[in-house]
Amino acid sequence: MSENLNQVYSTSTPAPKTHIGVRVGAELVGTYFVCVILFIVGTLGQVLYGANTLLIAVATAAAYGIVSAILGKLSGAHYNPAVTVAALFTAKITWLDALLYVIAQLIGAIAAAATVVGILPSSTSIPDKTWLTYVVNGFDKGSASNSILAQTEISFNITMAIVVELIASIVVIAAAIRTLRVDGEPKPNHSLVMGIAYGIGAAVTFPITGAGMNPARSTGIALIAQNKGLTQYPLQQLWIFWVCPLLAAAIVSLVVILLNMLKIAQTSKAI
Amino acid sequence: MSENLNQVYSTSTPAPKTHIGVRVGAELVGTYFVCVILFIVGTLGQVLYGANTLLIAVATAAAYGIVSAILGKLSGAHYNPAVTVAALFTAKITWLDALLYVIAQLIGAIAAAATVVGILPSSTSIPDKTWLTYVVNGFDKGSASNSILAQTEISFNITMAIVVELIASIVVIAAAIRTLRVDGEPKPNHSLVMGIAYGIGAAVTFPITGAGMNPARSTGIALIAQNKGLTQYPLQQLWIFWVCPLLAAAIVSLVVILLNMLKIAQTSKAI
Amino acid sequence: MSENLNQVYSTSTPAPKTHIGVRVGAELVGTYFVCVILFIVGTLGQVLYGANTLLIAVATAAAYGIVSAILGKLSGAHYNPAVTVAALFTAKITWLDALLYVIAQLIGAIAAAATVVGILPSSTSIPDKTWLTYVVNGFDKGSASNSILAQTEISFNITMAIVVELIASIVVIAAAIRTLRVDGEPKPNHSLVMGIAYGIGAAVTFPITGAGMNPARSTGIALIAQNKGLTQYPLQQLWIFWVCPLLAAAIVSLVVILLNMLKIAQTSKAI
Amino acid sequence: MSENLNQVYSTSTPAPKTHIGVRVGAELVGTYFVCVILFIVGTLGQVLYGANTLLIAVATAAAYGIVSAILGKLSGAHYNPAVTVAALFTAKITWLDALLYVIAQLIGAIAAAATVVGILPSSTSIPDKTWLTYVVNGFDKGSASNSILAQTEISFNITMAIVVELIASIVVIAAAIRTLRVDGEPKPNHSLVMGIAYGIGAAVTFPITGAGMNPARSTGIALIAQNKGLTQYPLQQLWIFWVCPLLAAAIVSLVVILLNMLKIAQTSKAI
Repeated sequence: MSENLNQVYSTSTPAPKTHIGVRVGAELVGTYFVCVILFIVGTLGQVLYGANTLLIAVATAAAYGIVSAILGKLSGAHYNPAVTVAALFTAKITWLDALLYVIAQLIGAIAAAATVVGILPSSTSIPDKTWLTYVVNGFDKGSASNSILAQTEISFNITMAIVVELIASIVVIAAAIRTLRVDGEPKPNHSLVMGIAYGIGAAVTFPITGAGMNPARSTGIALIAQNKGLTQYPLQQLWIFWVCPLLAAAIVSLVVILLNMLKIAQTSKAI
Repeated sequence: MSENLNQVYSTSTPAPKTHIGVRVGAELVGTYFVCVILFIVGTLGQVLYGANTLLIAVATAAAYGIVSAILGKLSGAHYNPAVTVAALFTAKITWLDALLYVIAQLIGAIAAAATVVGILPSSTSIPDKTWLTYVVNGFDKGSASNSILAQTEISFNITMAIVVELIASIVVIAAAIRTLRVDGEPKPNHSLVMGIAYGIGAAVTFPITGAGMNPARSTGIALIAQNKGLTQYPLQQLWIFWVCPLLAAAIVSLVVILLNMLKIAQTSKAI
Repeated sequence: MSENLNQVYSTSTPAPKTHIGVRVGAELVGTYFVCVILFIVGTLGQVLYGANTLLIAVATAAAYGIVSAILGKLSGAHYNPAVTVAALFTAKITWLDALLYVIAQLIGAIAAAATVVGILPSSTSIPDKTWLTYVVNGFDKGSASNSILAQTEISFNITMAIVVELIASIVVIAAAIRTLRVDGEPKPNHSLVMGIAYGIGAAVTFPITGAGMNPARSTGIALIAQNKGLTQYPLQQLWIFWVCPLLAAAIVSLVVILLNMLKIAQTSKAI
Repeated sequence: MSENLNQVYSTSTPAPKTHIGVRVGAELVGTYFVCVILFIVGTLGQVLYGANTLLIAVATAAAYGIVSAILGKLSGAHYNPAVTVAALFTAKITWLDALLYVIAQLIGAIAAAATVVGILPSSTSIPDKTWLTYVVNGFDKGSASNSILAQTEISFNITMAIVVELIASIVVIAAAIRTLRVDGEPKPNHSLVMGIAYGIGAAVTFPITGAGMNPARSTGIALIAQNKGLTQYPLQQLWIFWVCPLLAAAIVSLVVILLNMLKIAQTSKAI
């Protein structure tokens, strides 16, 4: 049995073909590009031509998909601390590499937010606050739909935010675990499946939270938007956008480990 | 000839590689995730930002596609009683498994409806009825377009509902039979083809019926929305959304069996 | 040289694996489903929720793509007389089969138009004419944008119609020839490429002509809509929607034959 | 070391299987079709039915993707001087061929612009200027959003234009280098990846610059639209749309060469 338990994890031994410096660099650059695309479309694209869930969903799908397709072979295309944690739990990456990946992802996302907020023009009629409404992750007064809901008596509360972020994150993490090989390399269908997972996740979460599903993305924009006069300080609600994706990573990893144990148990019986 | 007839069904012998408990569990979880996505996008996504056929079509495609891509290998990715019945008719699944699958699908869909209706905020200005307009399947006063049509003298009657649901269901069932192997396992193109089949089916049916094509989906939301003050009790019209998909399953299965018989007849002649 | 010329056509010898009755039946059923989807989305989808080029483009892509994916192996997935003519010119199908294909396509398209027009509800406020505005192919007073343009001093004339229909048809026919094998069977990428070709063609042509690119589709709806009170009799402008796709078939076939001749000439020289 | 440096470039030796005349012709025809589609959708599609970032993004993706899928094997599917320059820097094409490719691309793009502007109807209510607003590449008064921004106190300045064009072009060029083989032939995933790269690039750049990313496309329409009464002469701002894509080509090529050197260094050490 203890041997069987070992086997559950023996799917490990990640083969670090690429130099760790290149891999961490690829995570930083990849996360930067994913986030810079999401932040530009979520500000310029949404404010001028009207909020559009479908545009956000399609752009989110394309952003993660194309960057994974281009850089994926270098680092395994995580670009998301929750994906890295799930890869760690399922033994596709080592502790040290995971730590470096997450740091690189955060730097990439913060740099992306700084780039976009840095070039946004602001004036009295369109202040920073307006541009940032749909791109910051939040709920209640921080919800992407807050201005629309202001005319009603309802708001999108923390429970709704947790439910949709958890559902969307489970889909994203499950898609990642399903399309990364045992050694952490992406399978051929990786970028397409990841793109669609993030896209449908964005369609589900956008009206409520502005579409998080990625703690690096949420942290990057929250830090840079903190003092831009938003109705709700984004850093105050940021913890939700770490807890839900990480919880999703834990749930998915547990299911995967249990399924692997079951498979081994069945095989042993067969022998 | 009797041997030939046998051969028509000899495409059977499904190889139940995965434990039946895992398979039924995968159907339950898969149907839950498909439906929870459809119900969130069909309520929050439609009401706040305006009814949008394209959003529903793309989200429906992505929902079925991504869940099939993630969980498909475990159960064959049915998530729809009509698909299970067609798989039964074409001998890709046994009677007992089919029964368990359908029960799992219904539980998954009802749980999804309960989740979404449970978190929807309601008030005097946006009552439950408003949120549920586009997500409940129906016709006439239960049609997704009923509020728009109220200003005209027309309505979308039962004939229209039957025609569009039958057409869309035939496409979905045919896509499923075409992309499931003889042993019930999905082919590599399964999730992409199924996604597109459901997506175009949603574009065709949404303005009239709110896009059914799946008795589990229709039943789940109808049960939970029954006492939410809708103009039309959804359970009263639910039978349509069982009859059309099941009729489609019968038609497609019949065509497949006839084509197989013809192929065998030709082969015999050749010999 | 005469032998070389022969070789240009020696890419012929189509292998009619499937019974001609099945193939012609598949063309009829396939064209019916493609057209019934296009006609429903082009009437119900467009009129109630506002004309939407993107919806038409995506639905056109999905309609041709999914039917090709499901039925393609049976008949080669033409569903379009211009594709059949191009297949004839490039020797992928025989004269007799081509004739039967075109007849089957026309019957399928007319049946589809009859189905959709048959179920459309009409009233004083939404007469048949309103439903049919965006789905009939035409130009000038028959243009899909005619009602919008009525408030300006311009119209979309026959030259514009010819240019866009020719461009879109060349893309569609070239995609078909490129993804059908020498024996007329579809290559693995056939349905995806065809879907995208028809989709972008619809985006290009819809605002002007209502997106033709397929004489069977144009004829089916023109016949059924002829006496429905449209500002412009559709049958009067129908010839354009035969000439452009057939001209495109001739142009593409000529280029393919010339490229094949050049390849053979090069190979001969090499020897 | 000098040998290693050689190896960096030894990925060269492009195998010119297809006759240079055919290849250059394919670039001309391919660029013509890509641009004619972009220009029609960017004028007729945008003006009549409202500016729509998603339509532009999807149409851009489909235009590049479908033409690459149809003609790609003939020339490597560049259709963009910046892609050709990057292919030159990474030794996938020779100097002479690159020069001929760029000339062919420019001729194709200019012909496409002439075709579309030639058929556009103009009147007092919809002058040429209106049709061309969203299709010409520019910034400040030449920005696609200029008319919307006129009611605010802000404008989209040259810095914003450079940032978004550079980001989008890097994605496009990296996608091209990643999906073209050492000998310049497209890999099987080429057209899909290129389509998505251009699509997301269009979503990012459209509201600011009208979506350039391709000097041939920008030059073609700028030349033909120069004297059409636009608020901003397009040729005055054209240099940006050459500098950014070419800079992107240089950056991506440098990274690729450095990564190749690193790989060789690692391999040498291993031996």
